[in-house]
Amino acid sequence: MIETDAALTDAFRLAMRRVASTVNVISLCVEGEAMGITATAVSPISMDPPSLLVCINQAAAVHPSMDVVTHFGVNVLHRDQEAIARIFADRRFHAERFADGWENDCVRPPRLIDAQASILCRRIDHHRFGTHSIFIGVVEEVWTRDGVDPLVYLDGRYGRVGD
Amino acid sequence: MIETDAALTDAFRLAMRRVASTVNVISLCVEGEAMGITATAVSPISMDPPSLLVCINQAAAVHPSMDVVTHFGVNVLHRDQEAIARIFADRRFHAERFADGWENDCVRPPRLIDAQASILCRRIDHHRFGTHSIFIGVVEEVWTRDGVDPLVYLDGRYGRVGD
Repeated sequence: MIETDAALTDAFRLAMRRVASTVNVISLCVEGEAMGITATAVSPISMDPPSLLVCINQAAAVHPSMDVVTHFGVNVLHRDQEAIARIFADRRFHAERFADGWENDCVRPPRLIDAQASILCRRIDHHRFGTHSIFIGVVEEVWTRDGVDPLVYLDGRYGRVGD
Repeated sequence: MIETDAALTDAFRLAMRRVASTVNVISLCVEGEAMGITATAVSPISMDPPSLLVCINQAAAVHPSMDVVTHFGVNVLHRDQEAIARIFADRRFHAERFADGWENDCVRPPRLIDAQASILCRRIDHHRFGTHSIFIGVVEEVWTRDGVDPLVYLDGRYGRVGD
């Protein structure tokens, strides 16, 4: 089908609602301030070097900081961490966000201790595209939680993977 | 934890097994030849312009073609299309792959008719990184299938999203 621009964007949005994504909190620390944002547009790139990318809206509160940090954290959420996903999806920034469950020395990116996985990345590149930026990180440290039950997001709802 | 390079890669691989991804077949057509590859490293970028990215191994058979095509297709698989995921995850190329269920005029990228969603993209940019390339596409046409039940991949197995 051929669409007008607005109809095309609506159709693309509808298609993306049909794509399941694992939910992450991207964490960073700038001048002693911890920040984070819920993100689903995260993808591994390569195992050599181990690397991944994160797409972040340029209008997001964390975006200017993502441009200057040396490191960021990718905290892959577990199914039991839906509350954390909702807190960090809220645009307003609260210092309390990192009060419980986080290892946070406010030097390195905060790490969610019980995350399904947590990946410390050195930010080495970025590409602007449209409303977003693609940040590329090379993996420096990895933590994983036993058992495999990540939090996923599909069609506007949180869920988990089954058979 | 501090890891050696090999241990770090292993740890990253283990972490990525804990990340659920929707399964896609990337399709393209070069000089009348249809090609495709199963890919999970796919992410939306922006709604303005509607765009997405695909990470593909530079060693993949489709990679040289991805470098020259004007368009590629992202066919988001439905839960009932696990067989298609397996066929296109096989490195060997078979013309028969596109025999059934595909709309294929061998000019535009083949489109999987019963896909959960199918997105025709104009390839407008790419970035090499490590063993992989990140291809950026701007969305030109979108098809969606009613009902939401995409095929997902987690911890080496295919599955679906539930509550």
